[in-house]
Amino acid sequence: MNKVAVIMGSKSDLPVMQDAIDILKEFKIEVEVDIVSAHRTPEKLFDFSKNAHSRGINVIIAGAGGAAHLPGMVASLSPLPVIGVPVKSSNSIDGWDSILSILQMPGGVPVATVALNGAKNAGILAAQIIGSSNDDVLKTIIDYKESLKAKVIESSKNLG
Amino acid sequence: MNKVAVIMGSKSDLPVMQDAIDILKEFKIEVEVDIVSAHRTPEKLFDFSKNAHSRGINVIIAGAGGAAHLPGMVASLSPLPVIGVPVKSSNSIDGWDSILSILQMPGGVPVATVALNGAKNAGILAAQIIGSSNDDVLKTIIDYKESLKAKVIESSKNLG
Amino acid sequence: MNKVAVIMGSKSDLPVMQDAIDILKEFKIEVEVDIVSAHRTPEKLFDFSKNAHSRGINVIIAGAGGAAHLPGMVASLSPLPVIGVPVKSSNSIDGWDSILSILQMPGGVPVATVALNGAKNAGILAAQIIGSSNDDVLKTIIDYKESLKAKVIESSKNLG
Amino acid sequence: MNKVAVIMGSKSDLPVMQDAIDILKEFKIEVEVDIVSAHRTPEKLFDFSKNAHSRGINVIIAGAGGAAHLPGMVASLSPLPVIGVPVKSSNSIDGWDSILSILQMPGGVPVATVALNGAKNAGILAAQIIGSSNDDVLKTIIDYKESLKAKVIESSKNLG
Amino acid sequence: MNKVAVIMGSKSDLPVMQDAIDILKEFKIEVEVDIVSAHRTPEKLFDFSKNAHSRGINVIIAGAGGAAHLPGMVASLSPLPVIGVPVKSSNSIDGWDSILSILQMPGGVPVATVALNGAKNAGILAAQIIGSSNDDVLKTIIDYKESLKAKVIESSKNLG
Amino acid sequence: MNKVAVIMGSKSDLPVMQDAIDILKEFKIEVEVDIVSAHRTPEKLFDFSKNAHSRGINVIIAGAGGAAHLPGMVASLSPLPVIGVPVKSSNSIDGWDSILSILQMPGGVPVATVALNGAKNAGILAAQIIGSSNDDVLKTIIDYKESLKAKVIESSKNLG
Amino acid sequence: MNKVAVIMGSKSDLPVMQDAIDILKEFKIEVEVDIVSAHRTPEKLFDFSKNAHSRGINVIIAGAGGAAHLPGMVASLSPLPVIGVPVKSSNSIDGWDSILSILQMPGGVPVATVALNGAKNAGILAAQIIGSSNDDVLKTIIDYKESLKAKVIESSKNLG
Amino acid sequence: MNKVAVIMGSKSDLPVMQDAIDILKEFKIEVEVDIVSAHRTPEKLFDFSKNAHSRGINVIIAGAGGAAHLPGMVASLSPLPVIGVPVKSSNSIDGWDSILSILQMPGGVPVATVALNGAKNAGILAAQIIGSSNDDVLKTIIDYKESLKAKVIESSKNLG
Repeated sequence: MNKVAVIMGSKSDLPVMQDAIDILKEFKIEVEVDIVSAHRTPEKLFDFSKNAHSRGINVIIAGAGGAAHLPGMVASLSPLPVIGVPVKSSNSIDGWDSILSILQMPGGVPVATVALNGAKNAGILAAQIIGSSNDDVLKTIIDYKESLKAKVIESSKNLG
Repeated sequence: MNKVAVIMGSKSDLPVMQDAIDILKEFKIEVEVDIVSAHRTPEKLFDFSKNAHSRGINVIIAGAGGAAHLPGMVASLSPLPVIGVPVKSSNSIDGWDSILSILQMPGGVPVATVALNGAKNAGILAAQIIGSSNDDVLKTIIDYKESLKAKVIESSKNLG
Repeated sequence: MNKVAVIMGSKSDLPVMQDAIDILKEFKIEVEVDIVSAHRTPEKLFDFSKNAHSRGINVIIAGAGGAAHLPGMVASLSPLPVIGVPVKSSNSIDGWDSILSILQMPGGVPVATVALNGAKNAGILAAQIIGSSNDDVLKTIIDYKESLKAKVIESSKNLG
Repeated sequence: MNKVAVIMGSKSDLPVMQDAIDILKEFKIEVEVDIVSAHRTPEKLFDFSKNAHSRGINVIIAGAGGAAHLPGMVASLSPLPVIGVPVKSSNSIDGWDSILSILQMPGGVPVATVALNGAKNAGILAAQIIGSSNDDVLKTIIDYKESLKAKVIESSKNLG
Repeated sequence: MNKVAVIMGSKSDLPVMQDAIDILKEFKIEVEVDIVSAHRTPEKLFDFSKNAHSRGINVIIAGAGGAAHLPGMVASLSPLPVIGVPVKSSNSIDGWDSILSILQMPGGVPVATVALNGAKNAGILAAQIIGSSNDDVLKTIIDYKESLKAKVIESSKNLG
Repeated sequence: MNKVAVIMGSKSDLPVMQDAIDILKEFKIEVEVDIVSAHRTPEKLFDFSKNAHSRGINVIIAGAGGAAHLPGMVASLSPLPVIGVPVKSSNSIDGWDSILSILQMPGGVPVATVALNGAKNAGILAAQIIGSSNDDVLKTIIDYKESLKAKVIESSKNLG
Repeated sequence: MNKVAVIMGSKSDLPVMQDAIDILKEFKIEVEVDIVSAHRTPEKLFDFSKNAHSRGINVIIAGAGGAAHLPGMVASLSPLPVIGVPVKSSNSIDGWDSILSILQMPGGVPVATVALNGAKNAGILAAQIIGSSNDDVLKTIIDYKESLKAKVIESSKNLG
Repeated sequence: MNKVAVIMGSKSDLPVMQDAIDILKEFKIEVEVDIVSAHRTPEKLFDFSKNAHSRGINVIIAGAGGAAHLPGMVASLSPLPVIGVPVKSSNSIDGWDSILSILQMPGGVPVATVALNGAKNAGILAAQIIGSSNDDVLKTIIDYKESLKAKVIESSKNLG
């Protein structure tokens, strides 16, 4: 029913972006994965972005590094909420370029930016977006947060 | 039906955050506004965050400056999507502290961060989140993007 | 014969970008000016970039601020040399976002980046590009450099 | 009599925070250690912070990385002096996020911030705080400083 | 009984440092104010730092800008807790030099650093340090925090 | 006919700069390679820069690290377009010094700056400059861009 | 007998550089002032730098902003000690470009860098260099430092 | 006759500072080496700095990392020229803290700062300072610069 698209600028971003795919699968949310490069496949970028909402996608997660234009360009072309993941790729200056290229979007075209390499959080955020109008998914999120709490409580035992 | 809460750490953030309120009203989305300080009213923070989803709120927009803990703490307590607005307040170092305090959340607790002082985009993003499961709001977003386009086209006339 | 296109993401960038237009006119090089927003008019961006070289344009100068995607997206769509001008716009973090979004392009898609607000240098660089295969324009550049020298020599008189 | 609580956001911070524990033990000051995550166990954060001063704790040392909200949130809830240790965790941008999230607290809610990964100094500072009203501990600090001096003098021998 | 020394590197730092003096007076804590420059009056720095604890001072607050060596040098010479206030003076690079010169002290010599220009918080922290062994002052801090809360609650009325 | 000079400040920059040489050879453009240090061989810098355009060179690519003065000094002495490659050398502060020393040229003396270690893009940009007045080279660029696209399309297969 | 040359890249740097001239005159050291632009008058740069030591100059102070190449290029051509003053000019990014372009010189070619806009300190440093082999000038420096001390002591009176 | 003191805050700085010692020995200039910690041995700092010029030392080179106060404190106590070497020590934030703590000295107390880890250049600068009043040493510097040039020329052979 609900579907999230996870796209990235290069296959080399996949190890980072896999965290988004994994957590969404854990949450039983359908995921579609693709490589869409703003700079190398601009036509594919257009087609993907213009049509995603008509194809039943609810949220788009886009990861890219360096001068990362993918999330912002998707956001300019799609009415869907776009989550941007700044990737600390090999051509990035400690990640600052990735972060600023995704975060500092002009008025009218937001990108929901998460932490550097924060693909897992992008997946959770996508689930929260779906959960904001879907009580089953909302319940999944509430349970997930409880599990985080339990892990911390467990880890604090036997600290001596 | 749909409702967005816009909260901020201090009344001095209101001139920045007003942009979120205005655009949401323009989109005919119900808005609730409050001052909730993570550092000065932590109990109110708890009450607000724990109960927002039960009170019919769909999305929370939280703005704060300096060591901005409000968006992240709300996100730790609520299952709803939380949009963080880094505010370049008078006690901020060019905004870097606000941005990093909101953006760099640990795994498990995302905040959807927008640009420095980007409250307008926070409002649009909240609408897009609602629109991802509501065709009327989605239509509003599509129309809004068309209006942006028309303004740019108009501005490019008579450049000599 | 030779023609340079000067485009910018918003009419508010014009005061900065005017320096490029002025120096090119001073060098008797034909200039075309337009507003093309990567985020608000992506279709215009496509049309402009895909066709510029067929319309007789030799060099494209693109200025933008914040998460500045215009120069990089034009470079992804056009085979022409693209000169990027990072603009320190009101929504920029001291210009760092503009610079990094334009400079840090991935392998395969270069943007010739000049200094923050350096539109004058963008105009001179466009002229140098034309001059690299046009002796008249090369001569103009050589004369221009001599005039810079003369001004410094003049300014150093009467320093007491 | 005197007691210092050393808490941290994640067990992965323990290797860094151990330096605080070790130096306090060396100074014969009682130490209590716990994992308290601002984002994953907010209720535990509340309970811990609200009650620490009633349980006989004099100083709280809190370490965290990334968007580090733990020290500031403890400071908002406890009247005790709170020492913050920015941890350069794996999800940190060279430590800048940790530093700014802890240092740049708003007026009214101070956190005594030490250097990045400076847990040892946090322990010494806690001892100095206790020593400011306890002559035995003050004497320990004075002796400690003398021992630092002796080590440097020793190291400067035989430099050739 | 309890006494805090507030020193600064230059009289030009007084407008910033006055906030520390004011809040300490509001808390009925005795304050001593002096100008001590690490670079221009190194002998005075020595005398002041070596003797402060013998003169009945409990906490030292030191403010300085640029390459701010005053707090660290006092900390090297005194066994008391030293609170450093990075001042954004006219010769500072957006405050980064002041912050890093004060914060990044080597192991063995801590400075309790507060936010840029955060003299008010330095005063509150000094009071908290005294309060950690003085129930009357602890009570003052608790009351102060309640007053902060009340102000925020008041400010959130009539937001429309 | 067309010729590009690739120079660098030190032989240790060659592994980075080789990418420019390789792509130019792939594009069948003649390349000349030399070591020219602004700081160690200033006379050679003068001779090279003053005469390059008379020797049939069309574009100069200059790479350097740290306080990188080579590209800017060549640009001050030659009327040709100069492409600067900031090199992240061992004596560089994460590349920021290299980037700013090359990018922030004063009005009148542009350097076409590419990404940190972006020698490949420098080579492509040099080819685009030649292609702006040479239809064969322009065709090569268009083909190259098509090949980039094909590679991305290929890489997106079998993502599961 | 002793002589210091104060040069700068542009007459617009004179208000900053005047501080060096003034303090040197106060110290009775002969000063020569000139405008020498590395980028606009490279030949003059060569002549000046190659001959300064033969003309009886002992120390060179060079100020420049942005991608500041003047101090480093002078240092590459002259055997004299060169003091670099990073100028926060209008085309500078908060002074970071000026600082890094002057400070981060490669091995073999030092520039003695002082603080941003620190021309006064450049003048004092030049005097100290002369004083290191001239007892009269050394005495002047010692007296100057005493006067600094006296001013601070005076300023600390009547602080209330 | 001429003598340079090379001091450092910790023996762990010796591998970096050795470059200064080596080049000075190569230049036949007498060197004295010592460990002087501003923070751990402030009395030794005082004695060393107050008396260096009376003991026949002409130039002081001081290296330190993190909140590096050694060069500035020596400069406040000695009338000699002080060269500061920012050391990228293990407790440093990419060297920024070391650089800013040394470079940004207040008016009246200059430190001649060289590049991060630039101890070799500190040694050369010390030699240049001596050479500014000593023709034999000046000759050594001129020869050294010629040798740098020869090495670059040699390295540019056989580049293919």
